[in-house]
Amino acid sequence: MIDLDFEKTNGLIPAIAQDWNTGEVLMLAYMNREAFEETLKSGKATYFSRSRQSLWKKGETSGHTQEVKEIRVDCDMDTVLLKVEQKGGAACHEGYSSCFFSKVENGELAITHERIFDPKKVYK
Amino acid sequence: MIDLDFEKTNGLIPAIAQDWNTGEVLMLAYMNREAFEETLKSGKATYFSRSRQSLWKKGETSGHTQEVKEIRVDCDMDTVLLKVEQKGGAACHEGYSSCFFSKVENGELAITHERIFDPKKVYK
Repeated sequence: MIDLDFEKTNGLIPAIAQDWNTGEVLMLAYMNREAFEETLKSGKATYFSRSRQSLWKKGETSGHTQEVKEIRVDCDMDTVLLKVEQKGGAACHEGYSSCFFSKVENGELAITHERIFDPKKVYK
Repeated sequence: MIDLDFEKTNGLIPAIAQDWNTGEVLMLAYMNREAFEETLKSGKATYFSRSRQSLWKKGETSGHTQEVKEIRVDCDMDTVLLKVEQKGGAACHEGYSSCFFSKVENGELAITHERIFDPKKVYK
């Protein structure tokens, strides 16, 4: 039994998805207890969508699911790290491999990644 | 000017620290606007401690500071990814390189890392 601390943050804890192969940090989303248990059970990353206020099976719309290879939990039991195989190669709804496609450069944000898909074609 | 979305989550956004060299995810902490600006200015990871409710210059007590090599921001502007050089080799207050020193194995947590320092000797 893995007793995560969902109480500290009103039922939702952050979950980091990292590419299990390259080590690239792909995204951060949130999980409630149900999302965590569904991830454990199904082996596919399942989050809780704060905007939709419902369970979010990653890749449901785009097909870009995340196969969970390893689950890590931090020392305070209030953050999860998923090592995943990102299907389709893009975790970000904007079509990039990672949501962290911008870096700070001279006080501005610079895009450092190429788009893998066109979001207009994937989300209709 | 980098206009992060602190409002969505009541003034605090998650910040992931990743070893810039190995790619290991070291920890997740939170930043308010002041912590982010102090990190930008000083080049050392500065968070906001939720338990102490104050700015937290990482490594102030332990000496295990984080030199920031790169700052990334996600697509929604509400999560930060720091690529850091972890001084002393341990990001976790429990003496491990990473706070994610446990992984899920057969429904239990298994510790997969060796301690780098003894917390009792570092935090007196």
